[in-house]
Amino acid sequence: MENAKNLDEIKANILLMLDSKKYISARDEMLQLNEADVADVIDEASDELGIEMAIILFRMLPKDEAAEVFSRLSTDDQLDIINGITDKEIQFIIDEMDFDDMIDVLEELPANIVDKILEKSTKEERKLINTFLNYPEDSAGSLMTPDYITLQKNWDVGQALAHIKTEGMDSETVYTCYVKDWGRKLLGIVSLRSLVTQDSDVPVADLMVEDIVYVNVYDDQEKVSEAFTKYGFLAIPVVDNEKRLVGIITVDDILRVVEEEVTEDIERMGGVMGNDDREYLDTGVFRQVRNRFPWLILLMFSAMVTGLVISKFELLLKDIASLTMYMPLLMGTGGNSGSQASTLIIRGLAVGEIEPKDAPKVLWKELRISLLLGVCLSGINLLKILFLDREPLLVGITVCVTQIIVVLLAKCLGGMLPLFAKKIGIDPALMAAPFISTLTDTFSCLIYFSLASAVFRIS
Amino acid sequence: MENAKNLDEIKANILLMLDSKKYISARDEMLQLNEADVADVIDEASDELGIEMAIILFRMLPKDEAAEVFSRLSTDDQLDIINGITDKEIQFIIDEMDFDDMIDVLEELPANIVDKILEKSTKEERKLINTFLNYPEDSAGSLMTPDYITLQKNWDVGQALAHIKTEGMDSETVYTCYVKDWGRKLLGIVSLRSLVTQDSDVPVADLMVEDIVYVNVYDDQEKVSEAFTKYGFLAIPVVDNEKRLVGIITVDDILRVVEEEVTEDIERMGGVMGNDDREYLDTGVFRQVRNRFPWLILLMFSAMVTGLVISKFELLLKDIASLTMYMPLLMGTGGNSGSQASTLIIRGLAVGEIEPKDAPKVLWKELRISLLLGVCLSGINLLKILFLDREPLLVGITVCVTQIIVVLLAKCLGGMLPLFAKKIGIDPALMAAPFISTLTDTFSCLIYFSLASAVFRIS
Repeated sequence: MENAKNLDEIKANILLMLDSKKYISARDEMLQLNEADVADVIDEASDELGIEMAIILFRMLPKDEAAEVFSRLSTDDQLDIINGITDKEIQFIIDEMDFDDMIDVLEELPANIVDKILEKSTKEERKLINTFLNYPEDSAGSLMTPDYITLQKNWDVGQALAHIKTEGMDSETVYTCYVKDWGRKLLGIVSLRSLVTQDSDVPVADLMVEDIVYVNVYDDQEKVSEAFTKYGFLAIPVVDNEKRLVGIITVDDILRVVEEEVTEDIERMGGVMGNDDREYLDTGVFRQVRNRFPWLILLMFSAMVTGLVISKFELLLKDIASLTMYMPLLMGTGGNSGSQASTLIIRGLAVGEIEPKDAPKVLWKELRISLLLGVCLSGINLLKILFLDREPLLVGITVCVTQIIVVLLAKCLGGMLPLFAKKIGIDPALMAAPFISTLTDTFSCLIYFSLASAVFRIS
Repeated sequence: MENAKNLDEIKANILLMLDSKKYISARDEMLQLNEADVADVIDEASDELGIEMAIILFRMLPKDEAAEVFSRLSTDDQLDIINGITDKEIQFIIDEMDFDDMIDVLEELPANIVDKILEKSTKEERKLINTFLNYPEDSAGSLMTPDYITLQKNWDVGQALAHIKTEGMDSETVYTCYVKDWGRKLLGIVSLRSLVTQDSDVPVADLMVEDIVYVNVYDDQEKVSEAFTKYGFLAIPVVDNEKRLVGIITVDDILRVVEEEVTEDIERMGGVMGNDDREYLDTGVFRQVRNRFPWLILLMFSAMVTGLVISKFELLLKDIASLTMYMPLLMGTGGNSGSQASTLIIRGLAVGEIEPKDAPKVLWKELRISLLLGVCLSGINLLKILFLDREPLLVGITVCVTQIIVVLLAKCLGGMLPLFAKKIGIDPALMAAPFISTLTDTFSCLIYFSLASAVFRIS
């Protein structure tokens, strides 16, 4: 049995043994681990002891485990290992790998390596692999596997179980089986649970569920993961445009998709572009710069607009210098208020709770929230300006009225912009903190100084 | 068969039929839908046509489907329905519900309703329910179910399958079965796939996998979902402190956990506190204000510090008014640069890619990235200041040197603070955009004006 603490010890131990060339002991330790953990150990070995050591470890694996471990390695390690082992070993790994894992691996490898691998497959396999590789990345097609169990509608439970017994080990899952008509259209699904709890003479047709939720082969993986979350399925069928069954997607691949999709959303919300699936530590400095530069330069230009606003009020600021002092407060409150609202709406859109048609509800809610918050915040602020800063009442009123307006505008913009983005087909995650706070900076200054010039010209 | 478009039409259709009192047609339409979609329809009916209509719809469901639908309704609707149906109907729903779903439901309902429901259970059931309700919310214990299949080690495949045939319908899953010793300690797991692909005289012991990954009943649900993502399991065993098997968690419940955990993280990153699982549209205005106020007031106070810094340099700003114009640019670049770095690190920590011990690697990477970005951005900025704004070279140099320092500091702080938070046991998600940008505001102003006073006193 394993738990997290033991696991880390075992892994560290294996690396130590390797380093002191105790290969046999390292191997014995390693074979106790789950494939996912073996992949971790090999990744760490290649980081800390060099790729030669990682290859030695990899070659110590029993052949059937090697394919499973290989599919879980980082792309860099996969490349290094392919270059370090013999063609025969490569062929064996490819033969043993689950179809969907193989497609995942091939999608990430450079074209010359893919060609090298494809050379070793039969013509039929090559055709199938090429079809799958042609589905857009992040589509249902790129996630699915063609290895599923097909049952005949006129079979009984006994026949179905006999079929599963012979085919079961080569199929991605045996827990959901599929019934098709002669035109390869899906008629229904049969769960293994229903089969094993029935007598063997019950007709499969009686157990078949016909109310089927499916996805199209070109659907985005986000739609697929939404279906899994909503319905709690173990597998979902994938159909082509003619509604023919072309593959299935299983839930174990979906958890990784969810992680990927969420990471992409969060990174966009934090102002990082680039949709490569690489992890932070694996992404080079130049790639990081390339992913971060677009937002920074865009936001710098919009900050210049705010600068322009300020320069128009230079005389006012020379006159009443204390006004400058409250700029960070107003800009900060605006930015933070707006990003609170936009974060909630972006997330609501992502989980499917909120839709663009809810705009009036969102607006009405944000209006009330922002009024309450604005009045509370500016009340506290007014006391501070009058009694701590000892500024004139007119300065206090100008700042606080601006603050209320800024919170109101920021929350409403923060609530509406993601909905608008969704409506016109832009990723709402782009309407997050960096964008909202830069936008509110500009209008905070504009409102602030306009109000101030009006007030102080009158007074 | 269903796809998203059809589904929306069917749902709208059912509401229309209800509204025009065509109950029978509405019922027939509804029965075609998956339970998750029926729950959606009832939620929408209660929003748009009133709770009475929702109760009518709910009562039209066949009894076995009612329990499944009930567990998927919002807490508000569950309460309304419990208050609107008879005690007998309540009892039926509770009897039919999966154990883990029932615990989920009971956890959210008010104590008096829970008592009302518990009155209707047998003494044994009540004891079991109370044990489960006592596990901390968001722990493995609160997610697990005691309804799993136990096999005996000395059985053969035929005996195991016969046992599954009788017990299978009452178990949460039949796809993973468990073998325990006499002390209820877990010996191993057996997959149904391995059973149905073997001859009936093969001993269960031969198929049993002993290398078991498990979680403790008090582990946080985040740890549970990490295990599922890493290993791709369909179910994971839950043990108590004496390593005795007390329940299992199935993957269908994990997708919802992941959604919840991610939502909490994203909301914290966006400056919204409060860890209720309510959705945006279901959260009242006052609750929203309460969730958002803490950050805003905290950030307002820290913005006041920035104001203080500015007030110290009032004379300088009166002298060289154009300096004010570049404040938004510097504060904006700092905030955005910092939040890019912190977003990536917070996410890396959340998915387990980065650990506090990686701090030196992160720092070294952010240093290089920020230098590159800082030089590029300020280069463009310098051209703009000299040739568009036609400001003196000294102003340009002051702004641009400040910009480089600000980007550098912001990125390093953005990279380090989440690691530090993790290290001392604070949620790293709190070190996101709102916090970082307020912090960088202060030091941007301080660096900017200090540098400016030095430069312009010399010149």
